[in-house]
Amino acid sequence: MNDPLSTSRSETRERIVEAARQLFFQQGYAATGMAEILRDSKASSGSLYHFFATKEDLLVAVLEKYKTMLETHVIGPAFGRATDPVERVFAVIDGYRQLLQATDFNLGCPIGNLALEISNSHPNVRRLITENFDAWCEAVGQCIEEASGRLPPGTDTAQLARYVLATMEGAVMLARTYRSSEPFDDAIQQLRDHFERLVADGTNWSSPRSDNTPLS
Amino acid sequence: MNDPLSTSRSETRERIVEAARQLFFQQGYAATGMAEILRDSKASSGSLYHFFATKEDLLVAVLEKYKTMLETHVIGPAFGRATDPVERVFAVIDGYRQLLQATDFNLGCPIGNLALEISNSHPNVRRLITENFDAWCEAVGQCIEEASGRLPPGTDTAQLARYVLATMEGAVMLARTYRSSEPFDDAIQQLRDHFERLVADGTNWSSPRSDNTPLS
Repeated sequence: MNDPLSTSRSETRERIVEAARQLFFQQGYAATGMAEILRDSKASSGSLYHFFATKEDLLVAVLEKYKTMLETHVIGPAFGRATDPVERVFAVIDGYRQLLQATDFNLGCPIGNLALEISNSHPNVRRLITENFDAWCEAVGQCIEEASGRLPPGTDTAQLARYVLATMEGAVMLARTYRSSEPFDDAIQQLRDHFERLVADGTNWSSPRSDNTPLS
Repeated sequence: MNDPLSTSRSETRERIVEAARQLFFQQGYAATGMAEILRDSKASSGSLYHFFATKEDLLVAVLEKYKTMLETHVIGPAFGRATDPVERVFAVIDGYRQLLQATDFNLGCPIGNLALEISNSHPNVRRLITENFDAWCEAVGQCIEEASGRLPPGTDTAQLARYVLATMEGAVMLARTYRSSEPFDDAIQQLRDHFERLVADGTNWSSPRSDNTPLS
């Protein structure tokens, strides 16, 4: 359980944060003990308590890490799979579907889990969860902004981005509960229908449809 | 800490279940200890362990209780506030908004909390969470079914009900995290916009609109 002498302090710290991140993700914050983090990180307890006096300190570091992972693990890969801004929104959502399926519905959105688990009990940490949600909404909101020429005039793009986040989080919750992608697909199919109606109505608005143009 | 002799066994059991329900709701399942349940229920430990050998047994009883509370605490009051079937859907959703505001955003949907907390770790209990979600979707789905004459032909009412559930759960999550009804209202405003477009397009379908009829 000793740190190899060759391991730098920052590497040790990062190993502890990563072990905590995975354990919180897999089994929740309250259900994870410092002993498990110690075991999985292969750090000494001296190192662990040197860097993180409390489990809450570790939670802060985990949530800071998630902020940096948003671009590398969520937005970047999704944007690489699509170029159309509306399709990019659904590519971001599809990333969660892939994670759900790859983990047999064990893992969904780590931020959503923590949001419900610790919002009441850890007010200081709550702010970091909102920062993660804000950054997600900003990335998705930029896509919606890029597509705004196709949407009805006056569409509130920030509101629509929050709606996408809410629906995605709820869809992930249902998929994990039912251990099935079906309720996830149901919700996202309706979200897509909403976007299609917005685009149809936006197009109709700017160039009035002829009577035989279907509405969607 | 003794049960009053006058208290029947079923009353004691119910007091234990209700204490556990409130504690799980307020602070989560993992974070609640049997000692707290004992304290809040004012039951003897003999009674507690007579009825519930494990905390998981208590969780099962709590989720069974939620199934009976759906009608009395969620659906019934909401349906009493609205008669139009679409408005009833939003009255159900508004019930969660009222709870969030009345509890300063501490309490949202108890089933959603448990869904994310225990879906991985308690496979036997997971089924009871899906039963609660199913019953919710059935009640909301019946409203949507009643309104189906106004919706576009081929609208999948069960899918739409699951979408409403997913969006509501995500909206509750955001409201609790931000300690504000604003992200909740954002999401529900877009959900209402979705229903309005469905109704507009359903109406357009059955009776073609004149060119000067706005789409929503």
